[in-house]
Order: sequence, then structure tokens, then C-alpha cells
Amino acid sequence: MVKDCSTDTVAQAVREYEGVTRKREIGDMIRALRVDSPNVVASFGEDAAVIRHNAEDALLLAADGIWSRLMEADPFWAGYCAVLVNIHDIAAMGGRPVAMVDILSAVNDQIRDEVVRGMVTASSQFGVPIVGGHLHPDTPYSVVDVAILGTARMDDLIFSHTAKEGEIVVAAIDLDGRVHPSWWFNWDSVTMKSAEVVRAQIRVMEDLGREHLVTAGKDISNPGVIGTLGMLLEVSGKGAVVNLESIPRPDLAVFGISFEHWVRMYPGMGFILTVKPENVDEVCRRFADVGMAAAAIGEVNGDRRLTVRYLGRETQVFDLDRDGIMRIFAGGGGCR
Amino acid sequence: MVKDCSTDTVAQAVREYEGVTRKREIGDMIRALRVDSPNVVASFGEDAAVIRHNAEDALLLAADGIWSRLMEADPFWAGYCAVLVNIHDIAAMGGRPVAMVDILSAVNDQIRDEVVRGMVTASSQFGVPIVGGHLHPDTPYSVVDVAILGTARMDDLIFSHTAKEGEIVVAAIDLDGRVHPSWWFNWDSVTMKSAEVVRAQIRVMEDLGREHLVTAGKDISNPGVIGTLGMLLEVSGKGAVVNLESIPRPDLAVFGISFEHWVRMYPGMGFILTVKPENVDEVCRRFADVGMAAAAIGEVNGDRRLTVRYLGRETQVFDLDRDGIMRIFAGGGGCR
Repeated sequence: MVKDCSTDTVAQAVREYEGVTRKREIGDMIRALRVDSPNVVASFGEDAAVIRHNAEDALLLAADGIWSRLMEADPFWAGYCAVLVNIHDIAAMGGRPVAMVDILSAVNDQIRDEVVRGMVTASSQFGVPIVGGHLHPDTPYSVVDVAILGTARMDDLIFSHTAKEGEIVVAAIDLDGRVHPSWWFNWDSVTMKSAEVVRAQIRVMEDLGREHLVTAGKDISNPGVIGTLGMLLEVSGKGAVVNLESIPRPDLAVFGISFEHWVRMYPGMGFILTVKPENVDEVCRRFADVGMAAAAIGEVNGDRRLTVRYLGRETQVFDLDRDGIMRIFAGGGGCR
Repeated sequence: MVKDCSTDTVAQAVREYEGVTRKREIGDMIRALRVDSPNVVASFGEDAAVIRHNAEDALLLAADGIWSRLMEADPFWAGYCAVLVNIHDIAAMGGRPVAMVDILSAVNDQIRDEVVRGMVTASSQFGVPIVGGHLHPDTPYSVVDVAILGTARMDDLIFSHTAKEGEIVVAAIDLDGRVHPSWWFNWDSVTMKSAEVVRAQIRVMEDLGREHLVTAGKDISNPGVIGTLGMLLEVSGKGAVVNLESIPRPDLAVFGISFEHWVRMYPGMGFILTVKPENVDEVCRRFADVGMAAAAIGEVNGDRRLTVRYLGRETQVFDLDRDGIMRIFAGGGGCR
């Protein structure tokens, strides 16, 4: 049972969380940027863009930057996270991360060195090299942006926009971690783990893609577990009802955080997936094998609303027809 | 004849130009970032990293950002250039640009919209789609970073580190342009050209790579034609003597700029190449066919010094053993 939690407080906390609301400006920009190209199979709205290469290969390309406030709070963790979120973007697509490039602006050498140390630590641990980039040595701000290249087979990709009615929503999170001391909204399950463990966790997504065990998926990013599911449902054109008590969670009292806080956290290693009912047990077992807690937390439906349920009460978090999160598709158009 | 120009004033102007000096911090960062990986054939020091894919394919990955001062001066041109310099990075390697991702931080919607308009204009003109990225909507600064994916065949790549003694240095620049009204150090030969023209100019490098007509090459970037040649010589471990009067240039008096200024400019379309003597005429002809002025401007030698010559006088610009530019290889190590 989730202590002191109601569907209303959770729905409101997620809906108003800056990690969610700051996604709203994405739609405008995407509509402006889109240029059609025959080999681009998927682009905005997916964790990584998919470019067809030769007949059967897919090249994956993604980019992610780190909030400036995290750069100021902890430049090492910011550098580490810049690498981590990019690796997650490729893993979420069922791909294999191949190499990264970074662009770093730093106000001074100390911040630059800490960010680089963070990037190198994650790059070595996950075994994904940083192969180039750009340095602005003389900026009045500090920013780190990373882009990543990945590969997959076209047939084995996991998309965000392919969830279907009647499928089960599975959340998989590594609960063996800590609230990051520098950043209360980050659940760090990674810095204390061996290279072997984190690489095995990342590889699960590649296995699930190759064996076609999931129907859609995303890595759980800044909007947290419910917000990320909302983004998946938005691009899939679907809805879901989520049972709050089923969401995997650590012993919240030990860490001094509320359930409303937990569901908004960025987990060091977490994925939200949709799965056919007959494959749920196998998918959860794969995550358990690498030390991640995975559970069925709800079901996909056709009504384009994300609703949370707890103790017989239900509250709507997002009306994806009306509000959207990324608002990518207002004005029509598909995901491709 | 180059009016009011001496080898001393040119050497000093290039040596002390911020576009050159700000490359010095690159070396430290690169030594920290390097993680060995078997499929990474080339990384730092090249315009794009090279990752072997299957047996014969090369995947190219590069990233470049735009000086914050250019963002403030002209956000449209900054967005346009962010795309342009990335396309140049792939072209310089003999590759074909495939897709880009961007990360944009903007202090307000007006700047964001102008940067996006610049990126979309260049993306459409060059036919290279922007397929994803990340937006920071709420930053106290404006930055645009772009990363690019390209492809090539392993055998057809053009590297920076492969110049050899006795080869001829060729500079190719589109002289049909203007001093950019917002940024005195940029020679804009691109915004007024058709898609057909600029795409043909970019394709010349791919042709030269496939036909093995050049031995090394780089796009002329912020350090200008002499500074960029210095970077090529630095990673090749070679030197060169450059004849200043041979460097292609527009009618400088018409544009109100000095020769010292011209050689430091970023040209909208420019490459510096090394070529075997027997191929120089053919290489120059290929550029002339697409409206670019190309000329032999000097010869590669073995002494790791870049010297400029004019009216019988010579002045050393860089001692690449002692000063370096990027200082990538102080402490040993090769380009791979």
C-alpha cells in the first residue's frame, strides 16, 4: 500500500511537474523543423530517429542535453547523465549504442574538467566511446550536449508510437539505488554498479526487440514514469489506466520521499513498455534477471486519456486529445 | 598581387586570431575523453569520427556548436551555420551527409524561432533532414548545437592526418559571395545560392574521395584557410610553405577587407586539400565546374612548420612541434 497517496495528489503532481510541462514547446519546434526524407523512417516523438541503411539495417541518431540547473548543482553528475540519457535513448529503441559526440561549453576549467570526468566515467562503464565533439572554452554559461549513434536491424526496432488497445503497460526500474545527493529528482541506481551489471541492463532492451517481446517502449526520462507513459500514449494515439500501487518503488520512507515525488523522479535505469498479455511474465523475468523490478502497472485502451487508479478511485492525469504533452501531432500527421 | 600585405602581418594575424587560439584547449579535453573501441577507426583530430560498420561501410559522426556571440549577433545565421558547418564536416571526409539532430537553448521564443528558421533553411537547401533533438525552453542563454550522421565507404574516406611530403596544398573556395552583414568574419557564399548549386559543391568532395584524387582534406572552418591548413599539418605531422598570392580571394577592395582579414574568414564553402602533383589540375577543374576557385597554394614538407611566402620573403606562422594548434598529440599517440 502506498502511504498518504491519493489519485488526485499524484495526478496533479505529475501534471504540473516542470519535467512534464517543459515538453510542451517541443511540438511547435518540430513542426517547423520537419523536412521529409525517404530514408528517415521515424524522427520526432521517438527516443531516437531511425534512418534506413542498406536494406535491413537501421541507424539510430539521438541527442540530449542537460538542464542548466543540474550543471550548476553537480557538473560531474551532469556529465555522467548526459551520457546516460543518450545511451537510454538508443536502448529504448532496441538498438545498440555505438558512439557519442559531445559539445561542451564551460565557464571555467574546473567545471569543464568535472563534466568531462562524469562523461568519461559513464562512457567507460557502459562501454560506449566518445569519439568527437566541440568545445566552447570561453562561454558565460556551462552546457553539455551529447549526441549518440546506434544501430539495430529494421525488424527489431522498438518504437513509442506502436502501443495497441488491450496491451499491458510494464514499468521496469532498478530500485537498488539512492536519491542523488545533488539532485533530489534523480534516482541514482547506476554510479555504484559494475560495468557488467549496467551493460546487462541495457542489453535487455536489445534482446526484447530482437525477440519481439514488447510492442512499444521508451526510457523513463525527466517526466518520470507516468509522464513518460503519457508521451508514449500521446504518439501512439491511445490511453491507459495505471494502478498506482503496482508501480515498482523502493522503500520510500527509508529515502524520505513521497510517492508523488517518486513517480516524478528520473531513474538511473528505467523503461516503460507495452507488452502483449501472454509475454508479460517473460518480459518481467528478463528484467528481474539483471536486478530490475518490473511489473504490469496498467492496460492500454482506446480513449486517449491517461488515468491513475488507487483504492477504487480514479483521476485523469492527461487528456491527450486536448492537452497533449509534447503536442507533436496537433495539426495532424503521423509519427513518420 | 596582394595589396599592403607582408608575410609578417599575415603570420601574426593568423597566429593571434581567436578562431585559432581557442582551439588550444581541445587537446586537454581529448586526452581525458579518449576511450579505446575496436570499431572506432578515427576520432578526434578528424572533421568527423569514423566507425566501421559491417565490413566496408563507414559511419561518420560529428558535432559542432556555434559561438555564443554569433547567436547574439544574428540567430538566423547562427542556426544556418550550425547546419552548414556540420554538413561540411561530413563532406570534408568524403562522406555523404544523412541526417542531423539539434539541441537548442533559447532565452526567448523570438530567438528560438529565428534559429529554427535558419536551421530549416539550410536543412532544406542542402537536403539533409533534421530528425530529432532536444529543446531547453527556459535557459538564461541561447546556444545551438548540431550533430550529424554521414556515410561513406571505408576505402573512400578523406582524412586530415594523411598528408605526405611532396604533395601539393590546394585551397578551394567559393568566391562568389559577400561579407556577412551580421558577422564580419564570415564569408557568405551560400544563402543566395540555389539548392542545386550548393549540393553540387558538397558532392565534389564525395567524388574526390571515391576517385582517390586527394590525399588529405578538411573543410575551412573558423581558423580560416591558413589556420585550418595548420590543423591538417598538425595531425599529419608535416609542414608546408604557402604562397600567399596563390590563395584564392575575391576583389578585397570591393568588400573593404584586408588580405589579413580574408585569410581568417570562415568561407561558406571552402576546403583545404593535399593532392599528388599529377592530380592537381583535375582536382581544381572539379571545383571550377561547380563555381569554386581552386588553386595550388603551396607544398607539403617534412619539417612540421607552417610558413607563408610573399615577394621572396618567408615568415613562420606555426611551429607545430613546439606550439601546435589543437595540441592533440602532445604526449604522444596517433590519430586513431
